[in-house]
Amino acid sequence: MKRPLILVTNDDGISASGIRNLIRIMNDFGDVVVVAPDEPQSGMGHAITIDSILRCDKIVVDKGPQKEYACSGTPVDCVKLAVNQLLEKKPDLCVSGINHGSNSSINVIYSGTMSAAVEAALEGIPSIGFSLLDYAHVADFSEAEIYIRKVTQSVLENGMEKGVCLNVNIPKLKEDEPIKGIKVCRQANANWEEEFEQRVDPKGRTYYWLTGKFVNYDKGTDTDEWALANHYVSVVPVQFDVTAYPAISALNKILSDE
Amino acid sequence: MKRPLILVTNDDGISASGIRNLIRIMNDFGDVVVVAPDEPQSGMGHAITIDSILRCDKIVVDKGPQKEYACSGTPVDCVKLAVNQLLEKKPDLCVSGINHGSNSSINVIYSGTMSAAVEAALEGIPSIGFSLLDYAHVADFSEAEIYIRKVTQSVLENGMEKGVCLNVNIPKLKEDEPIKGIKVCRQANANWEEEFEQRVDPKGRTYYWLTGKFVNYDKGTDTDEWALANHYVSVVPVQFDVTAYPAISALNKILSDE
Repeated sequence: MKRPLILVTNDDGISASGIRNLIRIMNDFGDVVVVAPDEPQSGMGHAITIDSILRCDKIVVDKGPQKEYACSGTPVDCVKLAVNQLLEKKPDLCVSGINHGSNSSINVIYSGTMSAAVEAALEGIPSIGFSLLDYAHVADFSEAEIYIRKVTQSVLENGMEKGVCLNVNIPKLKEDEPIKGIKVCRQANANWEEEFEQRVDPKGRTYYWLTGKFVNYDKGTDTDEWALANHYVSVVPVQFDVTAYPAISALNKILSDE
Repeated sequence: MKRPLILVTNDDGISASGIRNLIRIMNDFGDVVVVAPDEPQSGMGHAITIDSILRCDKIVVDKGPQKEYACSGTPVDCVKLAVNQLLEKKPDLCVSGINHGSNSSINVIYSGTMSAAVEAALEGIPSIGFSLLDYAHVADFSEAEIYIRKVTQSVLENGMEKGVCLNVNIPKLKEDEPIKGIKVCRQANANWEEEFEQRVDPKGRTYYWLTGKFVNYDKGTDTDEWALANHYVSVVPVQFDVTAYPAISALNKILSDE
């Protein structure tokens, strides 16, 4: 089999330790092209750059065989630029991450990492977002690597249903607690209970920091939150039709003119 | 009945003609508080501000009875700030828009207007995003107003299923082509076929502009694209569980360890 072309991106920026590890792993699977933000773009969701220009320059970060481009835009911009401008053919796989921190449950809609994977799926490319539940810059990706290799191998072998991508979250456990395996899950019904910390700057003007507490309302044992809490890697298949189908018929009675 | 508390936001910025019209209309329905970006934030999707500070200042724009706050953040930041910091009680309704341009089909995931509405739904607030298919700064909102009033009245009277918000798009027609009514629809399977325009700046460095063509792959007559092309206002109920449920069982066979 020909070596697959693999696009690698993330939202923590091209120099983050998560993407450097992901590039190293992907070099074993295929020919790697990296198109990633030149600075951190966490929490950018599906943002795109439409009212300003994009920079995208070829760079060399290490001695690996991959090609790399640093882009001034969002993670979704990176995927669009890669597919429509930089690459000569459509990638066989897009991987995004390894994110420093969780993208489980509702975080999927805020996450630049996952939005890049969703954008690749929109373009018809099998894609996977990887996240490790460890915010540390010097996170240890060694146990995660086993599961990243397993999921990547599976997607390269089995392909992916059109319009679907994978949201893979890997728990951060203590040294004597091994990961139990992989669970394919649904997105838990969980959310952030936000607070803002109000402060006053040296000139006397008010400003705010977003803070918050993540709360899981979902008692199900088939969710990503359950899997992670129970020491499993969670894999949620993600799609991008957000229609609330069950609501259509009641609304039709109220709103439609015929 | 007590006058409802209505939160108004958008992504084109607090001075855009779309939101000024929406505020004027909402003043007839309830007590209005506006929390909107201080500058345009189109295409911001569900982005949030986590690595920098937020400014949010009370301002007076016109002589209307509404309270107004201009915020340095994204549309989703505006909703979070409003609900968790600025308002003394939970709003009875959140309306976002009127967006200058379409948020139909896949645009829902790129749209700051719709992400604000989704964020409000996440907070348990009935919410509606309104968009007019006219990018002009001086768009004529007068025909749109009839439908905005109708949908708003309906949501205030009937409430909204928890976790669902409405994506309302209003066609821009010629003077002799009246809007035929409202259709409740699903999100069409459509996408942008992107191109990038490559240019060279005065210093000789390459940069890019995102351009693209919107293509509808969906032949269905139950979609928002069909409704808009056939002179109807489209109403798509939107939710935020992006799990690809039909893909779970096949993936389980391939990936799960038990």
